[in-house]
Amino acid sequence: MAPFRILGIDPGTRKVGYGVLEVAERVRGERVPFRYVECGVIEVPGHEDLCERIFIVAQTLSEVIEEFAPNVMAIEKAFYGRNAASALKLGQARGALMLMARLRSVRVFEYAPAQIKQAVTGHGRATKAEIQHRVGVLCRLQCLPAADAADALAIALCHGFQHEARPSTSALRQAT
Amino acid sequence: MAPFRILGIDPGTRKVGYGVLEVAERVRGERVPFRYVECGVIEVPGHEDLCERIFIVAQTLSEVIEEFAPNVMAIEKAFYGRNAASALKLGQARGALMLMARLRSVRVFEYAPAQIKQAVTGHGRATKAEIQHRVGVLCRLQCLPAADAADALAIALCHGFQHEARPSTSALRQAT
Repeated sequence: MAPFRILGIDPGTRKVGYGVLEVAERVRGERVPFRYVECGVIEVPGHEDLCERIFIVAQTLSEVIEEFAPNVMAIEKAFYGRNAASALKLGQARGALMLMARLRSVRVFEYAPAQIKQAVTGHGRATKAEIQHRVGVLCRLQCLPAADAADALAIALCHGFQHEARPSTSALRQAT
Repeated sequence: MAPFRILGIDPGTRKVGYGVLEVAERVRGERVPFRYVECGVIEVPGHEDLCERIFIVAQTLSEVIEEFAPNVMAIEKAFYGRNAASALKLGQARGALMLMARLRSVRVFEYAPAQIKQAVTGHGRATKAEIQHRVGVLCRLQCLPAADAADALAIALCHGFQHEARPSTSALRQAT
């Protein structure tokens, strides 16, 4: 049976972080809930018109889905507190990314920022640096990923903790 | 040669208006710049999750594109003045609609609300009722379309006036 893969997406107006995790099997009795597969950042081109920007980002997501074949996509819920112009831009990116995932038959789940921080660091007000560090530990990375890619992995981890073996607390304890 | 068709889209979080116009040939020396083809309203389902809502609306747009084969899509630019939560929702709808048009190889143009009102009624602060009336006259409709559908036709007319034979002033004069 093919392993279950989670694609985390941190949507932004300039950069979209992505991260792919695999729900791993136990190896020699040791609990390894998630295996790191890939992460990166999609840079949103600044010079094209809006429709082209949206298309290029969605098309890159489509290529990531093609290459890594995730079973689900987890995406960060947007802040409402930002100004209306930023919210509109962020909404446009989110709408296009969610549509592309749906068109590629990848089921989409949404998580609030505080929920993601809570799942990964144990508290809802974690800083970017804390998230990067915890993601590095939980995914057993040799070096820290870029902040947007780390956020995307955190979102994928959040989904994993929520929907899979629910090893949230024990995994956090082991990894500390 | 196939006639040139313009699809106007009035994006909203609950309803998306659409209208299709054809750039018509002159008939017996009379200037008939645009021929009405179709208009309607896509109701956004309220009960599904966000990703499904986005998908259903985009899929319906895809069917409209399939049926009426527009050459271009003209879409209203969003207001920035609305609150961030509304702007986010509207952005999500716009992003998905623009992506779907681009995926169907339909080129997308954006117009500001004041620009659309100016093109159709001659002034930038027209009411909904004025727009409905003017669209009815300019498209030679037998009865007034729903407000969202009329707005969509107004957006299509705006594009037509901007990019085609530029008959804006004369068409307005003739139709008055």
